[in-house]
Amino acid sequence: MDTRNPAGEAKLLDEARAMWAQDRASQGLGMVLAHSAIGEAIMTMKVRPDMVNGHRICHGGFVFTLADSAFAFACNSYGEPTVAQQCAVTFIRPVPEGETLTAHAVERSRVGRGGIYDVTVRDSHGAVVAEFRGHSRTFTPRGDSATRA
Amino acid sequence: MDTRNPAGEAKLLDEARAMWAQDRASQGLGMVLAHSAIGEAIMTMKVRPDMVNGHRICHGGFVFTLADSAFAFACNSYGEPTVAQQCAVTFIRPVPEGETLTAHAVERSRVGRGGIYDVTVRDSHGAVVAEFRGHSRTFTPRGDSATRA
Amino acid sequence: MDTRNPAGEAKLLDEARAMWAQDRASQGLGMVLAHSAIGEAIMTMKVRPDMVNGHRICHGGFVFTLADSAFAFACNSYGEPTVAQQCAVTFIRPVPEGETLTAHAVERSRVGRGGIYDVTVRDSHGAVVAEFRGHSRTFTPRGDSATRA
Amino acid sequence: MDTRNPAGEAKLLDEARAMWAQDRASQGLGMVLAHSAIGEAIMTMKVRPDMVNGHRICHGGFVFTLADSAFAFACNSYGEPTVAQQCAVTFIRPVPEGETLTAHAVERSRVGRGGIYDVTVRDSHGAVVAEFRGHSRTFTPRGDSATRA
Repeated sequence: MDTRNPAGEAKLLDEARAMWAQDRASQGLGMVLAHSAIGEAIMTMKVRPDMVNGHRICHGGFVFTLADSAFAFACNSYGEPTVAQQCAVTFIRPVPEGETLTAHAVERSRVGRGGIYDVTVRDSHGAVVAEFRGHSRTFTPRGDSATRA
Repeated sequence: MDTRNPAGEAKLLDEARAMWAQDRASQGLGMVLAHSAIGEAIMTMKVRPDMVNGHRICHGGFVFTLADSAFAFACNSYGEPTVAQQCAVTFIRPVPEGETLTAHAVERSRVGRGGIYDVTVRDSHGAVVAEFRGHSRTFTPRGDSATRA
Repeated sequence: MDTRNPAGEAKLLDEARAMWAQDRASQGLGMVLAHSAIGEAIMTMKVRPDMVNGHRICHGGFVFTLADSAFAFACNSYGEPTVAQQCAVTFIRPVPEGETLTAHAVERSRVGRGGIYDVTVRDSHGAVVAEFRGHSRTFTPRGDSATRA
Repeated sequence: MDTRNPAGEAKLLDEARAMWAQDRASQGLGMVLAHSAIGEAIMTMKVRPDMVNGHRICHGGFVFTLADSAFAFACNSYGEPTVAQQCAVTFIRPVPEGETLTAHAVERSRVGRGGIYDVTVRDSHGAVVAEFRGHSRTFTPRGDSATRA
């Protein structure tokens, strides 16, 4: 099996490959799934003219969407259907039109059915433009073990 | 002056009208600015085929983007340049392709240069699909470095 | 049955009364449960000398704790065991020693097993000192219905 | 100069030592500042009988307060007055009475006047009980009105 990603550079998990094939939204935004592993994903996206405002600065929603896609691939890497519940994003630097963004999602916590994933979004110079934290929930017959103090 | 919105139904603030004219990103997603007032905005968006995944469910990023746009119009309604700093969204119900969403942003707090805005996103049946809370910061000529995508 | 609260002013739900009797932590901080209803609670707390720093400003942790307690009473008002999962707080104004704070928790959303509660904390002059949003999850055999866009 | 911490084990920054001396709230909760460095702090706290509910589980507010204190020491390590603006916490595991918690705060971002700090709270077995993310803002003589409890 060919395990290269759509851009031909990296190996992807089979789960990620199948998920990517159905993700018209991420494809339509020109995203590339550059890397996937258990609990991790890297996605890139170029900021197109239709993603910016009158000052040619990327709408924050597209920065969020890139991070959210990377989060989705990371939290679904175990092959169990998992959805986003709550996500927060902090915008740190403005992103000009034409810039290529890279979102790197890593798993911070996975206990019971709940997961926490941190996604850092950088520009082509390596400067951080946004920090994202997503909470996921897995659907399984295991029963809910998330409890609290 | 004609104060009807792009869809012809409602009055808009002059600030919102000017901001809308430059917001190619929101326009490109087919959003409509249905209402604007001090500290408040209502925007709608139809979920297009290019916004969904393989299960024809809207990508959460587009739900966020609609809420974020409504937030931007609400927090900029005072005529002072204001940017988003941190936003959180909770996804409550899945949104199928073809559904029309309405995001209603209202001001919860505005003290000093900081603001908090709550945005509720509903489907065409009035069911809440997402709750969003955004934090804004108003610029002054003093040179605050906090900027945003 | 006597339905007055510990301070004698208001009616409380039986669930809240039972929960309060066991909540040594909230009692130890001098909180008063002033009101409870379905999806709602009001709690007060005086900022004691042991809650402040060297500038006699209340530690943010105690402001959070008051809001978190009000949230807990609101989300448990249905008589089904419910826990906090994720909470966010924005600090808006400093609180001096001796001030009496009032936290008012109201339900924003309750779908499936997930709930969202907003808590506003005010000082004795009615000024908002903090805004809190809590996410809860109910434990029942109903099965998980929380899904996402 | 003696740079040991209050419990005698570790070196502390001078800024942290001075801040600790005035922090009656953290002291009153029995916290120990175990380590401080630029952008980093470690604090511990034993869960006392007055911190638990009827099921002898620690009130989430005290878990938050420990994390918030560690965050405060980390973001103030540069010697510039810095306050918390917005904090979020996810509760992962319940904490029984008598447990000793350790909160480790690390800097994730510091751009302009804004900072992001992540705090992981673990029990004595090393299990993560909570994940916290705090947003800070550094004061300047310019007169920013954002202040905190």
